[in-house]
Amino acid sequence: MPELQPPLSCPAIPAPPLLLGLAGFGTVGAALAAILEKNKAEILSRTGREIRIKSILTRDPAKPRACPIPLGAHLTTQADDLLLDPEINVLVELIGGADTAGELIRRALESGKNVVTANKALLAERGNAIFSLAAERNLHLGYEAAVCGAIPIIRTLRASLAGNHIESLIGILNGTCNFILSEMSERNLDFAQALREAQRLGYAEADPELDIEGLDAAHKLSLLIRLAWGLEYPYTDMPVQGIAGVAPRDIRNAREFGYRIKLIGYARLGAGESAETGGMEAGVCPALVHENFLLSRVEGPYNAVRVEGNACGSLFLHGKGAGGPPTASSVLADILDIARGDNPNNTGFPLRRQLLPAHPLPDDRCFSPWYIRLTVRDCPGVLRDVSGILADNDISIAEVTQKEDAASPPAAEQGLLDCIPLLIMTHSSSVAGVQKALRALENSSFVQEPPVHYRVLGRSNVGTS
Amino acid sequence: MPELQPPLSCPAIPAPPLLLGLAGFGTVGAALAAILEKNKAEILSRTGREIRIKSILTRDPAKPRACPIPLGAHLTTQADDLLLDPEINVLVELIGGADTAGELIRRALESGKNVVTANKALLAERGNAIFSLAAERNLHLGYEAAVCGAIPIIRTLRASLAGNHIESLIGILNGTCNFILSEMSERNLDFAQALREAQRLGYAEADPELDIEGLDAAHKLSLLIRLAWGLEYPYTDMPVQGIAGVAPRDIRNAREFGYRIKLIGYARLGAGESAETGGMEAGVCPALVHENFLLSRVEGPYNAVRVEGNACGSLFLHGKGAGGPPTASSVLADILDIARGDNPNNTGFPLRRQLLPAHPLPDDRCFSPWYIRLTVRDCPGVLRDVSGILADNDISIAEVTQKEDAASPPAAEQGLLDCIPLLIMTHSSSVAGVQKALRALENSSFVQEPPVHYRVLGRSNVGTS
Repeated sequence: MPELQPPLSCPAIPAPPLLLGLAGFGTVGAALAAILEKNKAEILSRTGREIRIKSILTRDPAKPRACPIPLGAHLTTQADDLLLDPEINVLVELIGGADTAGELIRRALESGKNVVTANKALLAERGNAIFSLAAERNLHLGYEAAVCGAIPIIRTLRASLAGNHIESLIGILNGTCNFILSEMSERNLDFAQALREAQRLGYAEADPELDIEGLDAAHKLSLLIRLAWGLEYPYTDMPVQGIAGVAPRDIRNAREFGYRIKLIGYARLGAGESAETGGMEAGVCPALVHENFLLSRVEGPYNAVRVEGNACGSLFLHGKGAGGPPTASSVLADILDIARGDNPNNTGFPLRRQLLPAHPLPDDRCFSPWYIRLTVRDCPGVLRDVSGILADNDISIAEVTQKEDAASPPAAEQGLLDCIPLLIMTHSSSVAGVQKALRALENSSFVQEPPVHYRVLGRSNVGTS
Repeated sequence: MPELQPPLSCPAIPAPPLLLGLAGFGTVGAALAAILEKNKAEILSRTGREIRIKSILTRDPAKPRACPIPLGAHLTTQADDLLLDPEINVLVELIGGADTAGELIRRALESGKNVVTANKALLAERGNAIFSLAAERNLHLGYEAAVCGAIPIIRTLRASLAGNHIESLIGILNGTCNFILSEMSERNLDFAQALREAQRLGYAEADPELDIEGLDAAHKLSLLIRLAWGLEYPYTDMPVQGIAGVAPRDIRNAREFGYRIKLIGYARLGAGESAETGGMEAGVCPALVHENFLLSRVEGPYNAVRVEGNACGSLFLHGKGAGGPPTASSVLADILDIARGDNPNNTGFPLRRQLLPAHPLPDDRCFSPWYIRLTVRDCPGVLRDVSGILADNDISIAEVTQKEDAASPPAAEQGLLDCIPLLIMTHSSSVAGVQKALRALENSSFVQEPPVHYRVLGRSNVGTS
């Protein structure tokens, strides 16, 4: 047995406690307080410092709460009680929203306080100003909790993959959408039923738009792009498609082809592009993910990110994407970095004077295989005409199936007499080509309903894991 | 579009280049040199410093090499050329083995140089002395590359999960074994055939013992235990079982039950135990992993680790476990931490005066469901007698199948007249109970061959992802 050696690393004088000002005492704030208490001994032994919540900013201090107020903490409605308290070293911002939270963070940084936040919307919208201010003042701005809950994707991009050129990012970045799509797939529900189930279980807000329209995923994706390539790609410039239009029949068709439909965020530099030229393909959309990929196995409220780097190869991280304790786990990781005296300057961003803008690649330089579902007239020559239109737009067919969906009423009952569904999987084709072909198909006499199409992640465009 | 703000973080005076002394110029060393060159611009923009290899220690500088010597680097056979050079800030140890490498690292730390190493065997055997020395001198000892290639498991345990109490760790920690078991499973090969294939493709050494006997996985597991719980669990005290005995028929049986056989490393604190009391169940063995778990989907030379924390829930990391560029990616991550001036003291270990020893839990406190294969006489009452012996040892049967393996010669042809295989999946039972039952079965008149048994990771003991 190896000999046990004495001092591993034991500061002569114990460091003073690190005092936190907590803004917001909802699910995540309460979980943070609970974990600080529960894992007290472990945190002290790992950092050499006690960590305590000194003040909590909340709208209604008198509100009855299920969780206890941390010992010694006082509740206040006055931001100044946190911002002007010289003992408070870290502002933990968990109130969400843009205006109040943004102002609070700005004032905290200007008062010389480190900041830890889970606010992806704020960072996606005003991140540049906030990151710049933190860097100027040499303060921490921790935001691990802002992207994918407990998954350490910020640290991984910032530190673990810092020696890599990042080739692509694909992620399941929104647990609400993933839960809804999983329910639709596993329990054969339609979108409205699955959404109600998600709301009942607390996986979806009463007002779920930000999630189901894909905007929350787009916020997170823009933060990941900033970190991976040092590029500013405003989420407002991204093609973003939500999940409200995903039909149960497409989920069933996808399964028959060996795929799952997932809401993905994707980003990659275009061929021949670099972080300097900035030509990038990125967006959020439902896509068919082949069941050989781990991404297709991400179930329920879980999130996952797959990063491809030119040294590491593919790296896949999977974990809980939301909820009190998983989000608090990441908030706490950032707080402990501060407690241990880590260097705040290691944002992993390129140390340029300013972030360069990303340039969305034009549609004729964006490629993917596609799933296309057409409702066509059941008459001779239709397949010839459909494949003619696809061929005219340089789209080559990998697989085609003409098949009634057993669980849907036959087309005839929907008022579409003599109609049949035609399912097409294509080889890799440009977005421009597919859009042109779909317009031509929609205007043709034999296509009876607006065509449905989704991107496909298959062996050919994602590699082998 | 958000306004682009000026200074993100731009040091007034550029930092001087960080100079490396590289010990070993094999697969990983050459990949490191290549990536430093290829990703030069990105590394400079992320750290603000140039990183250069100044000297390379190698046994034979004249040896013809497929990869170019980095510009400006000089090859030497003299360790002192690295150790006594005041310009060299970091020793990158990639020679492997214990004695020379250990001596080199000790001398480097004593000379005030930071160290980055991929040497898991050395750290598992003599880690305490090395970690203590680095801590005393306030120097970096980076070893991300020592465990699971490109997977950032060291950083994740050290920083991202530092606020968690870690409940369990399960990993596929050895790519060679995983490749061999994947080949046996997918291509229906026996162990010897799959090993030859692994050797042909460079996934196994000519002398593969360290890998296939499970010792390499045990080295890594002991490093993870040290980091997760601050406990010293020498790999020499661990139950370690390799894969040479895994029979194709058990792989096929496992698949029919919905499982894959994987070589896993596992560790968890016993019920009611803490990092202070140190009672722990840990080891390396082939196990049946249910196909619902991401761990069962880890194919070929990939590695994966699943960590369960009391705040984060389950976190699963998957990536390339070996090979030049993936290992170099992690080596480089450690080098970049040093280049950015990170605090070396954040090892994540408890800051105690010494690591506490882990105490292997006694067999009657270790529980798992089990797969048991018996070869029994085909006569009345055998199932009654077998289940009687199991019941006497508190083992409850979840599923039992009596079935000839289609791909194996019938028992009769193997000289076992009137024999049939009996497959049993049990509910969770103690190691002590199973061992006692297996001894009783082996000594009974109706069991004709030594029983085969493996641990099972199923829904009941791994949670839901």
